[in-house]
Amino acid sequence: MTTYRNPAPTVDIIIEMIDRPDRPIILIERLNEPLGWALPGGFVDYGEAVPQAAKREALEEIGLEIELVDLLGVYSDPGRDPRQHTLSLTYIATATGTPTAGDDAKTFKLFNPWELPANLCFDHGTILKDYLRYRYHHQRPVVQ
Amino acid sequence: MTTYRNPAPTVDIIIEMIDRPDRPIILIERLNEPLGWALPGGFVDYGEAVPQAAKREALEEIGLEIELVDLLGVYSDPGRDPRQHTLSLTYIATATGTPTAGDDAKTFKLFNPWELPANLCFDHGTILKDYLRYRYHHQRPVVQ
Repeated sequence: MTTYRNPAPTVDIIIEMIDRPDRPIILIERLNEPLGWALPGGFVDYGEAVPQAAKREALEEIGLEIELVDLLGVYSDPGRDPRQHTLSLTYIATATGTPTAGDDAKTFKLFNPWELPANLCFDHGTILKDYLRYRYHHQRPVVQ
Repeated sequence: MTTYRNPAPTVDIIIEMIDRPDRPIILIERLNEPLGWALPGGFVDYGEAVPQAAKREALEEIGLEIELVDLLGVYSDPGRDPRQHTLSLTYIATATGTPTAGDDAKTFKLFNPWELPANLCFDHGTILKDYLRYRYHHQRPVVQ
C-alpha cells in the first residue's frame, strides 16, 4: 500500500432529484471492491476547489449539472476506506432531469429516503443517517 | 514547486475563549512568509481524523485543550496559500484557561471580534468574515 503524507481529499454528493415526488437521491452500484451502493463522488484534483470537484464528479458520473445546497460535513475516520486514508467532504445538492451513466457505465438508481439500501459502502451508511437527520429534523452532524 | 496529486488537507481553528467577556478569539503572528496574523492550525496527518488534527494543533500551538463546536466550512481556492494548494477545514471551538506559546514560540494574541487585525494571511480574512456572520447572524457560508 502506498502511504501518503496526508489523507486524500474526496467529495461525496447527496443529489436530490427535485423534479420528482419526495426528492429521491441517487446512489451508484460499485462494480469493484468494496461492492455495494455508494454516493456519487471522487478525488479532489490538485488545483481544483472542492465545490468544483463535486460538480465535475456529478457531471462525469451521472451526467447531471448539480446545484450545491450545503456542506453536510467532513468524514475522515482513517478506516473509512479500506484502500487508503481518504477524507470526504460531503455536499447536499439538487438536480433536475434524467441522470445518464458515465463512461464507466456504472449502474445508478434513485432511492426514496425511506427505502435506502442496506449494503452501503465505506461510511456512506453513517453519512446517509446524518443526512436524514438533517433533512427531516434540521440537525447537523455533531463534530467531536 | 512540488506538485501533489491532491490538495493537502489542513485544519484552521477559530478558538473562542469562553471564560472571558465577549469571547475573544486567538490569532497567531506568523514569523515566516506569508507574514501577518493567522488562525491556529496545520496539516492533517495520514491516519488522523480531521477533528483530532484540530485538537492536536491547538494543543501544540497554544497549549489549549479545545472543544469543537461546529464545522464552519471548507476553504479550498487553489490560490489561498501561495506555497501549495491546500484546503482548510475550519472549525469553531471553545477553550478556557491561559494559552501558552508552543515550541516554535510564535506570538499569539486574543482579539475581540470587533477589532480583528487587518493583516490576515491566506484567506483568513474571508474565513473570519464568514465567522462573524455565523456568530452574529447565525448564517452559514454559502456553498457554490
